[in-house]
Amino acid sequence: MTQFMDVHHGMKGITADQLKQAHQADVDIETEEGVRFEKVWADPQSGTVYCLSDAPSAEAVQRIHGRTGHQADEIHSVPLTA
Amino acid sequence: MTQFMDVHHGMKGITADQLKQAHQADVDIETEEGVRFEKVWADPQSGTVYCLSDAPSAEAVQRIHGRTGHQADEIHSVPLTA
Repeated sequence: MTQFMDVHHGMKGITADQLKQAHQADVDIETEEGVRFEKVWADPQSGTVYCLSDAPSAEAVQRIHGRTGHQADEIHSVPLTA
Repeated sequence: MTQFMDVHHGMKGITADQLKQAHQADVDIETEEGVRFEKVWADPQSGTVYCLSDAPSAEAVQRIHGRTGHQADEIHSVPLTA
């Protein structure tokens, strides 16, 4: 398992409820791809969402996001933390 | 206090030690601007670093990063989390 940070653009004006619902939709099916979504952060002003996960691959993360209707614009493995 | 996610590009090949040292340099002086750096994640392959903090403003975050020699390329307030 590797940690991934994925980024979604174009989410201007996203509300706390919309973020929660989108995140919950991902969490609901995450085990089907062996993914564990840890946390999401959103900047409604610029429309940027950051999503941290543990997953077997970037493709697995993207498959979940795709199925729930919000494909990521970037997915980076982030093996280093401090 | 607001939560901020800042992003650094151009850090290709960054090592675990370099990330720790850079983060520690920020932490060492963070209180001078009322900032609390929570966590950093790095993708050495694309050279992207994500840095999560609690701070009074984006400018306060940038002043710390500037003084320690690694100015952020983007700083987003992320008031929403899930």
